[in-house]
Amino acid sequence: MATYNYQPSAPSMPENYAPDPPTSLNSSSHELYGNHGYSQSANQGVQSNYGYSSSYSSYGYPNVGGQSGGFAPGTHPEIVRSFQMVDKNRSGFIEERELEEALSMNYQKFSLRTVRLLMFLFKKGDSLKIGPNEFAALWNCLGEWRAIFERFDKDRSGKIDLTELRDALYSLGYAVPPSVLQVLMSKYDNGSGRRVELNFDSFVECGMIVKGLTEKFKEKDKRYTGSATLTYDEFLRMIIPFLIP
Amino acid sequence: MATYNYQPSAPSMPENYAPDPPTSLNSSSHELYGNHGYSQSANQGVQSNYGYSSSYSSYGYPNVGGQSGGFAPGTHPEIVRSFQMVDKNRSGFIEERELEEALSMNYQKFSLRTVRLLMFLFKKGDSLKIGPNEFAALWNCLGEWRAIFERFDKDRSGKIDLTELRDALYSLGYAVPPSVLQVLMSKYDNGSGRRVELNFDSFVECGMIVKGLTEKFKEKDKRYTGSATLTYDEFLRMIIPFLIP
Repeated sequence: MATYNYQPSAPSMPENYAPDPPTSLNSSSHELYGNHGYSQSANQGVQSNYGYSSSYSSYGYPNVGGQSGGFAPGTHPEIVRSFQMVDKNRSGFIEERELEEALSMNYQKFSLRTVRLLMFLFKKGDSLKIGPNEFAALWNCLGEWRAIFERFDKDRSGKIDLTELRDALYSLGYAVPPSVLQVLMSKYDNGSGRRVELNFDSFVECGMIVKGLTEKFKEKDKRYTGSATLTYDEFLRMIIPFLIP
Repeated sequence: MATYNYQPSAPSMPENYAPDPPTSLNSSSHELYGNHGYSQSANQGVQSNYGYSSSYSSYGYPNVGGQSGGFAPGTHPEIVRSFQMVDKNRSGFIEERELEEALSMNYQKFSLRTVRLLMFLFKKGDSLKIGPNEFAALWNCLGEWRAIFERFDKDRSGKIDLTELRDALYSLGYAVPPSVLQVLMSKYDNGSGRRVELNFDSFVECGMIVKGLTEKFKEKDKRYTGSATLTYDEFLRMIIPFLIP
C-alpha cells in the first residue's frame, strides 16, 4: 500500500502538438470516467516527464533534416528519429514486428499481445500498419504512461501493485472500480500465492484495455450517466475486436 | 457460398447424461439467441455424431474399472479414459498444458489462446484447473462442435468460410449478425488477400467467444429483448475476463 500524498494529475499537451490525433482513442484529454469516491482533483495538470533526455524538454523542434516524412508539423524529433530507425524498409509505415522491436529498444521486452493491442488501438481503420502520426500519438502516450508508472513505482522495482495500478489509472483519467481492478490483476496471478504485481508491459496492457473499453462505453453513454444500453449486435461488435488480437 | 439444403439442428442430450452441468456456459440447451431473419427451425433435434467410434454409439456405460474418479454416473467411458490419460500426475484435475495435449491428441494442434479460452469458460470459479465433470462437459461440447464443423465443411478441406461459420454457429444456437461475423473473420485475415477460412481450432475460438459473450449478455437481458442496460462496472467486469487469457 503506497503511503505518499495522493495527488492525481495528468500532463497538459504541448502547445504545438499535432492538433488532430488520428482517433479518439489517441486523445490525451483526460476526462475522468467513473465515480467511485475519488475526488475530482484529477487533471489539475503537472507537466509530465515524457521520458526524453533533458535536451528535449521542450516541443516544437523542426523535423529532423527538414523532412516531414508524413509527420505533423512540430512532431518531436526524437519521435521522428525513432520512427525512421524502426521503419527499416522505408515503407513509411510501422508493422507489428517493427513496433515490437521499437518498444523493446526504448522500454523493455513487450509481449506480442500488448504490441497487438497497441496496434489495434492506434491504427486507423482496417490497416495492419501504423503511419507516422499514429506512431507519434502512440509514442507520446507511452512516454506519458511510463512517467506515471515510474511515479507510482516508488521503490523502483519495475513493478506496481493493485493500489498503485488504481492510482496510476486514476492519474490517466480512469476511475476503475475495485471489483474491476481485482479481475484485471487476477489475470496476472500465476498461482504462486505471491502478491500480484505488474511490470510496465502488463501495466500498458491493463491500461490500454481500460482506455479502449472506456472509450467504447462512452460512445454509448454520451451524457456520462455511468450506464449504457446496448443491443446484442452492438455489444458483440464492440468487444470482439479486443478479443482476438 | 454453401448450396446445401439449410436445415439447422442441435443434438438432443443423451438420456442419462450428467444432469447438472457445472456452469450455465456448459449447457447444451440451444436456445437460439438473436433474430436476424433466420427461421425458427433450429433445435429440432437430429442426434449428432459425437465423434466417437461406433462401438461407443450409446451412453450409459459403467465407468472404466468401476472407478468413478469424480465423474458423474453415466459419463461416457471414452471421456473417463481420455481424462485418465492426460491427468498424468493423477491429481484428479486437468491443467492448461494437459488440456492442450489432450486436444492435440484427439483433434489437431490447438493454440494456447483457444486452450485458455476453453479453460476459462469451463472451469469453476477462480480455479486454474478443471475437474472431471467440467472436463466431461468440455469434451461433450467439443465432440458436438466437431460434428457440426464437419457437417459444414462440405469439401473436407478442414476449413470453413464466413457463410459456413454463420450456419455452423446457427446450428449451435447462435444467430450471429453479419456485421459481427465480419468482425470475427477479419481477425483471422493475414492480409494475403485470400478469402479467410477457419480451421477447427479457430472455429472453436470464434464459437466459444460468441457462446461466452452471449451467455453474459443474456444474464442482463433475461426477457430476450435483444437489448441490455449495463453500468460501466458491469460492462468492464463482464468483458475483462475474456481479454487477458
